[in-house]
Amino acid sequence: MPTLAEIRGAAEGLRGRIHRTPMVGSSVLDAQFGGELVLKAELFQKTGSFKVRGLLTKLLSLTAVERARGVVTVSAGNAAGALAWAARDAGVPATVVMATTAVPAKVDAARGYGATVELVDGDLLAAYERIRRERDLTGVHPFDDEQVITGHGSLGLELLEDRPDLETVLVPVGGGGLISGVALALKLLKPEIRVIGIEPEQADVVSRSLAAGEPQRLPSARSIADGLAAPICGTRNFPLIQQYVDDVVRVSEDALLAATRLVMSRTKLALEPAAAAPFAALLENKIQLGGVTAAVVSGGNLDVAKLNL
Amino acid sequence: MPTLAEIRGAAEGLRGRIHRTPMVGSSVLDAQFGGELVLKAELFQKTGSFKVRGLLTKLLSLTAVERARGVVTVSAGNAAGALAWAARDAGVPATVVMATTAVPAKVDAARGYGATVELVDGDLLAAYERIRRERDLTGVHPFDDEQVITGHGSLGLELLEDRPDLETVLVPVGGGGLISGVALALKLLKPEIRVIGIEPEQADVVSRSLAAGEPQRLPSARSIADGLAAPICGTRNFPLIQQYVDDVVRVSEDALLAATRLVMSRTKLALEPAAAAPFAALLENKIQLGGVTAAVVSGGNLDVAKLNL
Repeated sequence: MPTLAEIRGAAEGLRGRIHRTPMVGSSVLDAQFGGELVLKAELFQKTGSFKVRGLLTKLLSLTAVERARGVVTVSAGNAAGALAWAARDAGVPATVVMATTAVPAKVDAARGYGATVELVDGDLLAAYERIRRERDLTGVHPFDDEQVITGHGSLGLELLEDRPDLETVLVPVGGGGLISGVALALKLLKPEIRVIGIEPEQADVVSRSLAAGEPQRLPSARSIADGLAAPICGTRNFPLIQQYVDDVVRVSEDALLAATRLVMSRTKLALEPAAAAPFAALLENKIQLGGVTAAVVSGGNLDVAKLNL
Repeated sequence: MPTLAEIRGAAEGLRGRIHRTPMVGSSVLDAQFGGELVLKAELFQKTGSFKVRGLLTKLLSLTAVERARGVVTVSAGNAAGALAWAARDAGVPATVVMATTAVPAKVDAARGYGATVELVDGDLLAAYERIRRERDLTGVHPFDDEQVITGHGSLGLELLEDRPDLETVLVPVGGGGLISGVALALKLLKPEIRVIGIEPEQADVVSRSLAAGEPQRLPSARSIADGLAAPICGTRNFPLIQQYVDDVVRVSEDALLAATRLVMSRTKLALEPAAAAPFAALLENKIQLGGVTAAVVSGGNLDVAKLNL
C-alpha cells in the first residue's frame, strides 16, 4: 500500500509536467442541491483527464533498462492517449493495443503523441500479451498498478491543499483506479473525511466486488459514461476501496445524461458523462450534501463528432 | 461616443456584480494555428455570455423614476436571460417580449430571474412597441444603445489589463454591440492594436453595412451561431465599427461547426458556435496570426437538450 510520503513524492515528480487544475464553484448548482459544492476541474488536465497522473508516475518509476525497451498497454480508447502522452513526456517508446472498432479520434490522439498503435480484431488481451512477450515490453495496466494508484493520489493532496475544510469528496468509479488513490491520500491526511464513489448501474463492478468481498468480473459493461465501463475491479485497488471508501452508489444512464447536460449548461465545462457521475447521484438523491463537498470532474473527452448544434 | 472615462466608470459599476472572467491558453491551439492565442473565457460570465456587461450598465444608468416603472426588451432568446438577470440585480422590474417559438429553456431562464415574459405570435417588434407604450416602460435595445456599448467596453479594458502585449483581438460579430464597445476601449488605450470582427456568411449585416457605408437590414438571418444572427447593424454601433475595427471577415456554417467542435475538444470549454467564430476564421485562413492574439469566447449558451452522448 502506498504511503503518504510516496504519494507526495509522486506529486513532486508530476509538478511542472502536468497541470495544477483549478477548483471551481457554481452558485446555481449550490442552490439546486442545497449545499456548498466545489468542482475539481480535472477535465483541464493534460490529455483531458486525470489518467496522466498515474500513468506518468508509473513511467517515471521504471528502470533505465525498462524505459529504453518501452511499454505497452491495452485500451478501449481512453487510456491510450494518456499513456501515449505520458510516454512521450517521459521519453519512453509506447505501444498501445486497441480494438479496430475504437473511436478514430482516440486512435489518432495516441498516434499524434507518437505511440505505435496496434489495431486488433478479436481478443485484445491475448494480442496485448503476445505483443508484450514478443517485443520484450513492460506492460502497463491502466489502473491495477501500485504506481498508478500512487500517482492518482496526487489529486487527493490537491483537494485538501485548496480546501482543507472539505468534508465529503465524490469520485466517479470505473475499475477503481482513481478512487483508490484519492481515498488513500485523503484518509491519510484527514481520516474523518467522507469519500463516496459513484458508478453506473450498467457497469457496477466495484459495488458487486464490495458485496462479494473480492474483486469481481462483469461479462460486459456498457454505459454512456464510457470512461467508467470497466468490466473488472483491480486487485490492487479493491483492498484500498474496502478500507478507505465510505460508500459506492449506483446511478442510471438517464441520470448520467441529465447530469452531463445540467453541469455543462450551468458551469460551461465540457465534461464527459463519466465526470458527471457525482451529479447524477445528487439528481437521483443517492447522496445528501452536508458540509463542503468536492466533486471530481474527472475528464472532458466527449466525442465532439456527435455534437449537434 | 463614449469616452474612456465613461467606459472605466461602467467597469467600476460592474465590479463585484459580474465575474472577472479568466484568460486561458491552449498549447494545442497555438501549435495548430502557429501563434500565441489567449482565450477570453467570457462564457463563464453571469448568464453565460458577455451581454450582462452592457445591459446591467444600461439599467444602472436609468433615473430612479425609470427604474421604478420598469424596462422592456424584445429578444429572440439570448438577450432575454441577460436582461432578466441584470434587472433583478439592479432591482428593476423587467418585461421580455419573446416569440412563442423561442427555445423553452430560454423562456424559463428569463422567468427564473423574475422577468415577466410576454410570448407573442407574429410581429415581435409591434408587440414590443405596444407593450412599452401601454405600460409606460423604458425600452432597452440589446445592442443599439450608447450605455450598452459603454458597458461592453469593460471587456476591452480587461483584455489589456491582463495582456498589455496584445497585438490583435478577434471578436464575434452579430449586430455590432460587443465589437463596437470592445474596439472603442482597445483603440483608446492602444491605438496600434488590431481589432478584427468575424460574422457568419449567412448573417453578414455588418460586412454589408460597411460596404454600403451605412447600416443595412437583412431580410432574414439564420446561422448555427444563433447569437450572431442579427438582421440589423445598430445605428450607434456602425460609426464605431467604421472608425475602430480594422476588418470584418465572414465564415461559413461548416467552419463554425468545425471550430466549435475543435475548441471544445481542445480546451474543454463548452462554448456556443457564436463564440467559436474567431477559430472558424482561422480554420478558413481568413485571418493570419501574428503577435499575441486574443479571441473573445463570447458565450456558452449551447442548447444542451441537443447534446448527443
